[in-house]
Amino acid sequence: VDLGRLEEEARALLPPGSYDYIAGGAGDETTLADSVAAWDRLRLRPRVLRDVSAVSTETTVLGEPVSMPVLVAPTAFHRMVHPDGEPATARGTAEAGTLMTMSTRSTSSIDAVASAAPDAPRWFQVYVVTDRDQTARSVCRAAELGFRALVLTGDTPLLGRRLRDVRNQFELPDEVVAAFEATDLPHTLDQDRGVTVEQIGWLRDLTGLPVLVKGVLRGDDAVACLEAGASGVVVSNHGGRQLDGAVASADALPEVVEAVAGRAEVFVDGGVRRGVDVVRALALGARAVLVGRPVLWALATGGADGVARLLRTLRAELELAMALCGAARVEEITDDLVVRT
Amino acid sequence: VDLGRLEEEARALLPPGSYDYIAGGAGDETTLADSVAAWDRLRLRPRVLRDVSAVSTETTVLGEPVSMPVLVAPTAFHRMVHPDGEPATARGTAEAGTLMTMSTRSTSSIDAVASAAPDAPRWFQVYVVTDRDQTARSVCRAAELGFRALVLTGDTPLLGRRLRDVRNQFELPDEVVAAFEATDLPHTLDQDRGVTVEQIGWLRDLTGLPVLVKGVLRGDDAVACLEAGASGVVVSNHGGRQLDGAVASADALPEVVEAVAGRAEVFVDGGVRRGVDVVRALALGARAVLVGRPVLWALATGGADGVARLLRTLRAELELAMALCGAARVEEITDDLVVRT
Amino acid sequence: VDLGRLEEEARALLPPGSYDYIAGGAGDETTLADSVAAWDRLRLRPRVLRDVSAVSTETTVLGEPVSMPVLVAPTAFHRMVHPDGEPATARGTAEAGTLMTMSTRSTSSIDAVASAAPDAPRWFQVYVVTDRDQTARSVCRAAELGFRALVLTGDTPLLGRRLRDVRNQFELPDEVVAAFEATDLPHTLDQDRGVTVEQIGWLRDLTGLPVLVKGVLRGDDAVACLEAGASGVVVSNHGGRQLDGAVASADALPEVVEAVAGRAEVFVDGGVRRGVDVVRALALGARAVLVGRPVLWALATGGADGVARLLRTLRAELELAMALCGAARVEEITDDLVVRT
Amino acid sequence: VDLGRLEEEARALLPPGSYDYIAGGAGDETTLADSVAAWDRLRLRPRVLRDVSAVSTETTVLGEPVSMPVLVAPTAFHRMVHPDGEPATARGTAEAGTLMTMSTRSTSSIDAVASAAPDAPRWFQVYVVTDRDQTARSVCRAAELGFRALVLTGDTPLLGRRLRDVRNQFELPDEVVAAFEATDLPHTLDQDRGVTVEQIGWLRDLTGLPVLVKGVLRGDDAVACLEAGASGVVVSNHGGRQLDGAVASADALPEVVEAVAGRAEVFVDGGVRRGVDVVRALALGARAVLVGRPVLWALATGGADGVARLLRTLRAELELAMALCGAARVEEITDDLVVRT
Repeated sequence: VDLGRLEEEARALLPPGSYDYIAGGAGDETTLADSVAAWDRLRLRPRVLRDVSAVSTETTVLGEPVSMPVLVAPTAFHRMVHPDGEPATARGTAEAGTLMTMSTRSTSSIDAVASAAPDAPRWFQVYVVTDRDQTARSVCRAAELGFRALVLTGDTPLLGRRLRDVRNQFELPDEVVAAFEATDLPHTLDQDRGVTVEQIGWLRDLTGLPVLVKGVLRGDDAVACLEAGASGVVVSNHGGRQLDGAVASADALPEVVEAVAGRAEVFVDGGVRRGVDVVRALALGARAVLVGRPVLWALATGGADGVARLLRTLRAELELAMALCGAARVEEITDDLVVRT
Repeated sequence: VDLGRLEEEARALLPPGSYDYIAGGAGDETTLADSVAAWDRLRLRPRVLRDVSAVSTETTVLGEPVSMPVLVAPTAFHRMVHPDGEPATARGTAEAGTLMTMSTRSTSSIDAVASAAPDAPRWFQVYVVTDRDQTARSVCRAAELGFRALVLTGDTPLLGRRLRDVRNQFELPDEVVAAFEATDLPHTLDQDRGVTVEQIGWLRDLTGLPVLVKGVLRGDDAVACLEAGASGVVVSNHGGRQLDGAVASADALPEVVEAVAGRAEVFVDGGVRRGVDVVRALALGARAVLVGRPVLWALATGGADGVARLLRTLRAELELAMALCGAARVEEITDDLVVRT
Repeated sequence: VDLGRLEEEARALLPPGSYDYIAGGAGDETTLADSVAAWDRLRLRPRVLRDVSAVSTETTVLGEPVSMPVLVAPTAFHRMVHPDGEPATARGTAEAGTLMTMSTRSTSSIDAVASAAPDAPRWFQVYVVTDRDQTARSVCRAAELGFRALVLTGDTPLLGRRLRDVRNQFELPDEVVAAFEATDLPHTLDQDRGVTVEQIGWLRDLTGLPVLVKGVLRGDDAVACLEAGASGVVVSNHGGRQLDGAVASADALPEVVEAVAGRAEVFVDGGVRRGVDVVRALALGARAVLVGRPVLWALATGGADGVARLLRTLRAELELAMALCGAARVEEITDDLVVRT
Repeated sequence: VDLGRLEEEARALLPPGSYDYIAGGAGDETTLADSVAAWDRLRLRPRVLRDVSAVSTETTVLGEPVSMPVLVAPTAFHRMVHPDGEPATARGTAEAGTLMTMSTRSTSSIDAVASAAPDAPRWFQVYVVTDRDQTARSVCRAAELGFRALVLTGDTPLLGRRLRDVRNQFELPDEVVAAFEATDLPHTLDQDRGVTVEQIGWLRDLTGLPVLVKGVLRGDDAVACLEAGASGVVVSNHGGRQLDGAVASADALPEVVEAVAGRAEVFVDGGVRRGVDVVRALALGARAVLVGRPVLWALATGGADGVARLLRTLRAELELAMALCGAARVEEITDDLVVRT
């Protein structure tokens, strides 16, 4: 699997508006572009002549064993790119031995996603909507069905202004809307603009699940989330889709890692496209990365199998990158492996 | 409103020489290009999970309430782009609830601009010409008609050399010259080359109005202006039209803010094109920004309504950017929100 | 000889897959591109009015006199680009008075290379394969035939992922495989993934030859190699063919030189294309540089004569660069000659 | 006069080989390109509201009054671009009130250049050739004819390798060779490679003229030249024609100015194309700049008048740049006017 070609293939298959909805970012897309470029600004300092006859990418996230420190980020409307939708993504992810984060904006029900790969670990992404009961019902159902954590999106009190969608006059295809509305998930696309760190404890107490806050780009915010009861944070700029001009995840990660100081797990997403990017992220202190758009390109072109193939490729790339860095285990991916250009 | 397209539409409507007169800059236009790029070099560090259920862009400038910290910069010859000229700009600005700075090089009289939107706040931009009586008459008339401040342009003892105009052999269209000369404003395009900070007190005493100095790019100059009686400064390189090679406003702003140290209000113009740029400017310590060329593109394509639409769009963008930064009020736009790349 | 044109001529002669195999790098080829660019980031500070009536490029490497501090790097499969193969490279290198490093992945036998230029100094590059006897036989044969040092490749426990080869579905041409297998060299392309610094002493004791470790990009690794018995290191990222994202040799060199602190000789390869690059490398503390791809372009287009012409051109360029820097001898190429931009 | 267009016009008039000989640089022309770009990396910090009703560009160089701190650099073979040759350049320069540096590689005799503008100040550029008598005769003749200083080129023990000339198989046109040889100047193009700082005192004592050393890029070299009897230095990389990779003049200038510490005058050439570049150079501590290629384009397209027009344009640009910087006299161009980006 060649990620550049994968995206081109997906682009050829999808209606232009759907492709742009996924590929695009907010405003002038400077953050979108910078999110990929920021990883490249980190040069690797590989070690030589280490015994890498057995390289293992296995790790745990929130105590959960996974095949590699690469997870599936929450993304919306999987049926827009493939009729099998989120359950296919769940099956492909499970087949690759890792963890999927289901989005509140899914086009399949929580039950359908849970039953698609019942034994695989999965997380549930939450927007807290104005009608708190709706949110409560969905997170409690997720907890009952064995989702292992909630991922509260913190960076979306409003949707970012995505000029591609404005220019395309993009609207969700009818069948996607239908699928979306047929779920037991909150039907509104809008998070309550008054959500604060107080909802972290509410979600945790309601479900007994650990809560991660996604969208954190500052050390002080990370500390505030932990103090409010979060079990970790996801350093993210929402794939460049929210605030154009926001700092790249790779640039924000060290500050967050330093502020968290080992008290919780720090995850990161945005612009991770290669095994070497995973090494960079872990060297900067991330526990694991989350991958979004590439999973959708893989789903669009190959369904569940496509997702599994993509994730296996990333795992193979990571294994190779670790071997070439002289790191046989993920714990050996330490901060001396990277230097900023 | 999409600013990139707005300029293209205006370009299609206007004679090439008129378009170039507005769009162009001095010399090789390095400062012109850098003025936009400099804002992009400032990355935003948004805060998450703040209560932004009510975001207000309202603020005051020199004590005057305005709907947002985005004002209309002084620009010349509005009738060159639209027959309704400066009064249309005044109406559109008033409709958006903010403040227009009328240029000495207007193609409408002070009275016409004042009566176009009698209740809206407005400032008057001054070139001090050799015949001091001419200048005195116009600023006193502005004071009588309720203009709230004078904006003395400090960076134009001579006009910059704009190669587009040289190559186009640009001359003002006859009807513009006629309109220009029919005003009660000084007819010369040339400021007296001997003007110094001493004229600040003269203007203030003559009119009783606060005086801002526009074109300041250094902390020491800002202090000298305040000591000579100015009520504030506008950090500006005249849209890259005067000294090619001059520092970008976004780069000069922190030095000026530091030197002024809260004793006066600091404004900034140059390259502000998006709501996120307004957040950047305010995070660096500006009280408000001024917008020039986009207002002319809006006037050219839509008259007073076009100007209002543009300003409402900027306000909506600013509101969204504030919400995504976790800032519900302009006072919450603090310097920790930006970091230099 | 103009190196840019030399590559173009070779490209025109070679099958595209063969050209790409040589020219390409791992992953997105960021390290490949950066390896050349990194030298350009070092600006020269030439001295004026020095007596350069006699400039000498002569030096020694591991005590061996050579005509210049430019050696031939180990590269694979010379018969793929020219039927005369490695013996032609050996003759051309000898004619230019310098030293060739023969690759384990040669398409000629050790004996054939040794007899092609019996009096010229040469080194032997080693991959330690799982069947240690194979490796032992070849290095001992090299020692018997007068090779002066072993160059243990440290950065290749696995081959990097070269997307050009994947896309081209590149396979070695049959005649190359035949030639390759007809040698007395280890037939596997894969180094043992468990090789560590312990093999340095084993190779040295087995052959009595000094061992250099190639692929070192860190000061701590260089020290570990020396402590394990190495006589020096080659700072290298394997021409950008192994770990995409690895630091450029020019950027890693100062750290390695500082760590080695004069206790051993430090060599460097990667992106050296001009005489001025040799000056830069020596100013940063390298004893000599190794050149890879350009030698293959020269071999492809001109056989042994082509190789000699290329090396003579590099020597002439170095001589000119030294004269223009005011350095009559290589010892006068000191660190004050370069500054980082 | 628009410098970009001036070069294009000259290019259209000249044989391609002649154009390339002048326009080109050594090696990959990185220093050539960087020499222009380096000035642009210096941003100007203009002062506002200063009395610039009378701006004067007048200054002195080595005590000689000139109309502006812009001199004509020594360049070779003026008859190659215009039949009137160096005397025309001398007349045009004199008409603009400034100073020309005659090259040893002139296509007119010293007498012819001297008599073309007998009252104008002029300097004589020297290569010290192996036959010292030849050099002695020419510098003594220059002294007799009223040249005011000698400019010893320090950076050319050998000619740089200019790939354009190699590719063009450039040879001097026959009529240029004839004109060159008809002069009383040394006929060899090659400076003695053994020339050192000792020749500075020899030239001074022989002629009684002050000696400047051209090509200095380091503070230590500048000090060595002064200690050997030089009256000043010209910071220069020979227009990027000698050592490709050498530091830009604008980047080397501050180090040289600091080392000289006011004991002598420091000049600079390379990449100066606009009045604002002159301000930058003087702000960094240069006494004056020298301009080379643009003078040849002006000579090619307009003879003596062309040269005068170019120089008057540069003076007008400088005057405007000074006014916009708030500097009425060249002494007011101080180091606070520039900041490095």
